[in-house]
Amino acid sequence: MASVRIALLGCGVVGSEVARLLDENADELANRVGARLELAGVAVRRLGRDRTTSGVDPSLFTTDAAGLAARDDVDVVVEVIGGLEPARGLIHTAMEHGSSVVTANKALLAEDAVSLHTAAEKHGVDLYYEAAVAGAIPLLRPLRESMAGDRVKRVLGIVNGTTNYILDQMDSAGSSFTEALEEAQALGYAEADPTADVEGYDAAAKAAILAGIAFHSPVGSGDVHREGISEVTAADVASAKAMGAVVKLLAICELSEDGNSVGVRVHPAMLPRTHPLAGVRGAYNAVFVEAEAAGQLMFYGPGAGGAPTASAVLGDVVTAARNRLGASLGPRGSWYADRPPRSMGDTVTRYHISLDVTDRPGVLAAVAAVFAQHGVSIETVRQKVEGPDDAELVIVTHRATDEALTATVEGLNDLDTVRDVLSVMRVEGE
Amino acid sequence: MASVRIALLGCGVVGSEVARLLDENADELANRVGARLELAGVAVRRLGRDRTTSGVDPSLFTTDAAGLAARDDVDVVVEVIGGLEPARGLIHTAMEHGSSVVTANKALLAEDAVSLHTAAEKHGVDLYYEAAVAGAIPLLRPLRESMAGDRVKRVLGIVNGTTNYILDQMDSAGSSFTEALEEAQALGYAEADPTADVEGYDAAAKAAILAGIAFHSPVGSGDVHREGISEVTAADVASAKAMGAVVKLLAICELSEDGNSVGVRVHPAMLPRTHPLAGVRGAYNAVFVEAEAAGQLMFYGPGAGGAPTASAVLGDVVTAARNRLGASLGPRGSWYADRPPRSMGDTVTRYHISLDVTDRPGVLAAVAAVFAQHGVSIETVRQKVEGPDDAELVIVTHRATDEALTATVEGLNDLDTVRDVLSVMRVEGE
Repeated sequence: MASVRIALLGCGVVGSEVARLLDENADELANRVGARLELAGVAVRRLGRDRTTSGVDPSLFTTDAAGLAARDDVDVVVEVIGGLEPARGLIHTAMEHGSSVVTANKALLAEDAVSLHTAAEKHGVDLYYEAAVAGAIPLLRPLRESMAGDRVKRVLGIVNGTTNYILDQMDSAGSSFTEALEEAQALGYAEADPTADVEGYDAAAKAAILAGIAFHSPVGSGDVHREGISEVTAADVASAKAMGAVVKLLAICELSEDGNSVGVRVHPAMLPRTHPLAGVRGAYNAVFVEAEAAGQLMFYGPGAGGAPTASAVLGDVVTAARNRLGASLGPRGSWYADRPPRSMGDTVTRYHISLDVTDRPGVLAAVAAVFAQHGVSIETVRQKVEGPDDAELVIVTHRATDEALTATVEGLNDLDTVRDVLSVMRVEGE
Repeated sequence: MASVRIALLGCGVVGSEVARLLDENADELANRVGARLELAGVAVRRLGRDRTTSGVDPSLFTTDAAGLAARDDVDVVVEVIGGLEPARGLIHTAMEHGSSVVTANKALLAEDAVSLHTAAEKHGVDLYYEAAVAGAIPLLRPLRESMAGDRVKRVLGIVNGTTNYILDQMDSAGSSFTEALEEAQALGYAEADPTADVEGYDAAAKAAILAGIAFHSPVGSGDVHREGISEVTAADVASAKAMGAVVKLLAICELSEDGNSVGVRVHPAMLPRTHPLAGVRGAYNAVFVEAEAAGQLMFYGPGAGGAPTASAVLGDVVTAARNRLGASLGPRGSWYADRPPRSMGDTVTRYHISLDVTDRPGVLAAVAAVFAQHGVSIETVRQKVEGPDDAELVIVTHRATDEALTATVEGLNDLDTVRDVLSVMRVEGE
């Protein structure tokens, strides 16, 4: 039986699982590919460590990643090192030497998808990266291939497990952000420095990749409006609960109504509990897709972890290997539309606003006048008396531009009768 | 720009939507394929009807389906007629004349997948049928390609929207089966003759297709153990509710523990409300997949309807057209494993059993003895006194073989103290 040779760059949490699956499922994989998948080498940072990765012949380990990526007897290079460099250079080296590339590198793809695809095309090789977004969940292939006959209008995703775990804890246990973060860290769901997750950088990279594929337009991390969850309070979560909603960190990619621009944003938002994404618990991920003909779809599963990510990597390896055997190539990168990023101010959304106000006649009239002045229509107002001369107003608006809503909040801040704008959060999912 | 020529066999609910999307999205599709998708002909049963399908040149309509399928200037034949004949013959004709085939025909695929794939391979053409299972939800491609590096252990699906609508109504409104069916018929969710849906034939065909793809073994509709929902009572639904569960018609495909056989079954079952499938409302479909490395995934969306089904068909058309341009072929049918179907008696499951019993000392002991005699262990018993000398026992078992559970129910029927076995339903999702 023929064989297809695989080089593995990186052998950490994901890489070691890829090696294990290649070994344990070797016979099944051979049947599916039509050739045996043979590990040609594994690049690691140091050889000194005890290398007992299941099924890997110790002689295959090397510290010369560039040499391995450049080997001409390799068919598919799997990059699971992560980060921009040296991953980017190694991927280019692999392509220049005729290898197809499978990577899980979201940071790199969010920055460089177009030039990486251009290089793949130039060298006549495949580039797959299913594992870069939402771990094991098949998402990029369905968007790129299954939905290729349809028109995607909107993608709404929970694509970061750490923040979903934290928000879920805040919702179910009434914890503060800090308490929930500490618990997530203790359980290994959050890193010691949680910035990339809680400030939305990780989700923004995934949103950029998703938007690029869904709307056939180049989108980079820098085009993504990003807000994290570190300012979400227990009061916000309780307020959401009171209106039958839940707070989630959402990655939202949407085509403007005229179809000419693409808005991409990551921020916490209130979502009705009846929305399919509202039930996504713990560290799970899910992505909700609205398409013209297909309607509403959702893809759900584990968004991280060694084995789930390795499953997605290996699915791409099987496809790249089949293409190699058939002397064919998978679908190319496809950014024919070149729709510019829409500015956040033009985004149409709803706001949930809590105000600490003096409990005097005329307060609501003054507040309502500020909304009217900016053309923002109010959907509901709830007033809670907190004490003598002290009340909380909770206002949910109808849809308006983010620019008008921001100006409204500024106007409210200037009112004498408003002591404090306690919280402002977008409302999504309708 | 090059073009790829499409023949459409059938122009009903799905076919007319395929034609509409081909026309409305023509420019986007051309960008994605790298060639224009050109409609070469549309086969219909009668020309007499008013043919105003959007975007179709009236001269393209023909009643000669066989002639259209045999045309040598066609690249991709789309079969959306449904049923076994003439669809099967037309698909073979198309392949013999070198056309790739895209079909939405679940009945045919459930009966004939292996021979259709063999014919496709023989003639060097593609065969795609994403729309045959769960309408618009990308499912077959993810299972066949994205998860090709993993080992699927279990597929649990809500794949029939009609029965899900009926059971959802019974759950939310407390309706009887008959009332809910009548409402579904009034709303167009159920047909005048609802047999194929409510008796599980439709779901069984989809289960057979899913099992074949998930486990690489040939499975036909005849291998599927099938029970419908027409005997599900309002009392069953209420009893499920009382234990925090919901009744769903599930299509279940599972690998035996030793990996040597495949069990495929369709039946109503109680599912805990915390299970992701429990929240699938109305006529929506969802498929839950458990894989060794990926863990638990779920795919959710509309399972039927003209536009959603057409979206899935057109995704396949785009792939087949790209392959045609690249002179390549997609993945073949892959039934290398040849695992035999497991008999229903060997299936391991849990039962929920309601008994009408005489309210006398010793009844529970007699009932428990029957379970013990067949080696079935009881998880919970609830007793409700209904009147003088009249009680209801609700028993949920631990996992046991279906054979042992069936024998237990027979034994209970023979007890003098058991007036009636009110209901027996499997419990899934743990």
